[in-house]
Amino acid sequence: MRIDKLRKNAAQQDKQAAFAIFNTYNITYLTGFQGATALLVPPYGTSALFVSGIHFEQAKAEAKNFNVQLINRGENLMEKIVQQSPTPTLNVDTLPIDHWRTLVKAIGGEEKLEPANQLIRSLREVKDQEEIELIQEACRIASVGIRAAGETVKVGATDRQVAAEAEYAMRKAGSSGVAFETIVACGAGCAYPHGSAVERTICEGDFVIVDLGATYRFYRSDITRTFIVGTPTKKQQEIYDTVLLAQHRALESIMPDVLATEVDGVARKVIEEAEFGEYFTHNLGHGVGLEIHEAPTISPNSKDRLQAGNVVTDEPGIYLPGYGGVRIEDTVLITKKGPEKLTHAPYEPQK
Amino acid sequence: MRIDKLRKNAAQQDKQAAFAIFNTYNITYLTGFQGATALLVPPYGTSALFVSGIHFEQAKAEAKNFNVQLINRGENLMEKIVQQSPTPTLNVDTLPIDHWRTLVKAIGGEEKLEPANQLIRSLREVKDQEEIELIQEACRIASVGIRAAGETVKVGATDRQVAAEAEYAMRKAGSSGVAFETIVACGAGCAYPHGSAVERTICEGDFVIVDLGATYRFYRSDITRTFIVGTPTKKQQEIYDTVLLAQHRALESIMPDVLATEVDGVARKVIEEAEFGEYFTHNLGHGVGLEIHEAPTISPNSKDRLQAGNVVTDEPGIYLPGYGGVRIEDTVLITKKGPEKLTHAPYEPQK
Repeated sequence: MRIDKLRKNAAQQDKQAAFAIFNTYNITYLTGFQGATALLVPPYGTSALFVSGIHFEQAKAEAKNFNVQLINRGENLMEKIVQQSPTPTLNVDTLPIDHWRTLVKAIGGEEKLEPANQLIRSLREVKDQEEIELIQEACRIASVGIRAAGETVKVGATDRQVAAEAEYAMRKAGSSGVAFETIVACGAGCAYPHGSAVERTICEGDFVIVDLGATYRFYRSDITRTFIVGTPTKKQQEIYDTVLLAQHRALESIMPDVLATEVDGVARKVIEEAEFGEYFTHNLGHGVGLEIHEAPTISPNSKDRLQAGNVVTDEPGIYLPGYGGVRIEDTVLITKKGPEKLTHAPYEPQK
Repeated sequence: MRIDKLRKNAAQQDKQAAFAIFNTYNITYLTGFQGATALLVPPYGTSALFVSGIHFEQAKAEAKNFNVQLINRGENLMEKIVQQSPTPTLNVDTLPIDHWRTLVKAIGGEEKLEPANQLIRSLREVKDQEEIELIQEACRIASVGIRAAGETVKVGATDRQVAAEAEYAMRKAGSSGVAFETIVACGAGCAYPHGSAVERTICEGDFVIVDLGATYRFYRSDITRTFIVGTPTKKQQEIYDTVLLAQHRALESIMPDVLATEVDGVARKVIEEAEFGEYFTHNLGHGVGLEIHEAPTISPNSKDRLQAGNVVTDEPGIYLPGYGGVRIEDTVLITKKGPEKLTHAPYEPQK
């Protein structure tokens, strides 16, 4: 059970206080229930889940192993938590400054609170079997979506039509919603990795970047393909092939115990050697799970070391201002034996 | 210009320090650009917009009136902001505790920082003409979506199919994405205002709650309709009629200068008089704009007073545990003359 793991890790680090958890993803991770406001985890015994009226009946029915408590209107949640804590100090995952100050007042001093998000981050970055299966399903659905997108990309279609067909296909394949706002960038707009807010029509010769994901029972997925409308020019093909090579080389380097900086470096080196280095303007990848961006981070200045059980993206890109860009991305599970791609779609750009 | 308004309001409250803004919606509100990490607004002159590599080219092209600065890898953003601030203290909108502490360290003392989110909240809750037009468009699209949902609700359809058709229709109508995860709750699952994560098939006699919204150029909308599959029972009709009456009565009471608690009370009184009071387990409404939940709050313990330019939801509900529930919601603009409904769909539940 995840709460037992949290307690065990806390004990190993000599953090004996109860945990007050406020981040919605951390609460879902530890309880399996989405929609609670706070969770109090004492060192021993039953944890208390604090919910507002709108979620109370559902929490009582679904969060079976928790002491589910209604937050009454006008009640000071922080005082309620402090009153129920069996320890005089609290480990807190995270809070915005105004709520933090309310909690400081309730507990009687900032020295009684210890930010402890790192402990939960460490747990969440190594997925258990149940999580892996949910992410696999989210990745299967995203693969359906990116194929539908590819079938829609053509001269005269709009970026919004491509998103519409991809999302519709994902819903029909079992998605409970997008993992993040679908990105469809075309033409010179592809020089902006996240595209533009203005509707655009796809033209002959365009690069079209489609970046999307699905959600399945709270877990997410992430995949990007870039399409080229019409016969690629030599320059387009060169950019595409460079990104694809970088993506594949990086994939092969994704192993347990490898530093995240090393994996980023593998992709960055391929792109630098093709003299596009300055146009790879973002990190190589990030963890995926309950959140679309979570630990570990795969970047040139990451402090993370990869582990079996991580689920990460591998997504190099090249973006030439005023010209266009290419990004290719898969979601990858790290097993003891090495990388296992969870998203599956062809790398055939020509449309 | 919104930044001028912020400065004017700050001066009136004798807050002379520069503003350091970190909340992504606040930054979009003040700059029109989405994707920056921080914004420094000095008392006079050009504001600085801090962006990471992934958004740098786009920010330079789109955020014309700002001094757009790249956050280099490994750079301490908080130190960068403090170095560039023309004032020795800063007004800060909001930050999580760990980043707050980094900023405290950079500026050399917590007493030099003042939480000032309230000032921006006050600006954002009164929409200007440009915002109203974008929200109107988002509401028009959501109205298309709820009609498509209504056409899909029937015995044997699943909650996911209803969401699929609604979202597809919204995309085709111009949506750039959902305003929040579409809620389709059916049968006893309707007793949970936000539905269930498990797929369900619609049965004869079910209540089906559909709650959805669209996003249009960063602005959102929110609408709910409840359908009854087959001939309503007397009890179903009574619950539906009570919620509808509460929703209509509350709408009529939405006027400038009225206390939000009063409007909530109008709906709550209708439901209490029908003896369903304990089953109306949430607030009557909330502001809608760049965020799906923003100021003002329409609840029994709100401190807000309604103003012309607010855009709010009016969404009473009754949820009977183990039985099912009803919610009816529209998004409403408050004009000087009174309420103006922005979402439009029939209140005809029978399917």
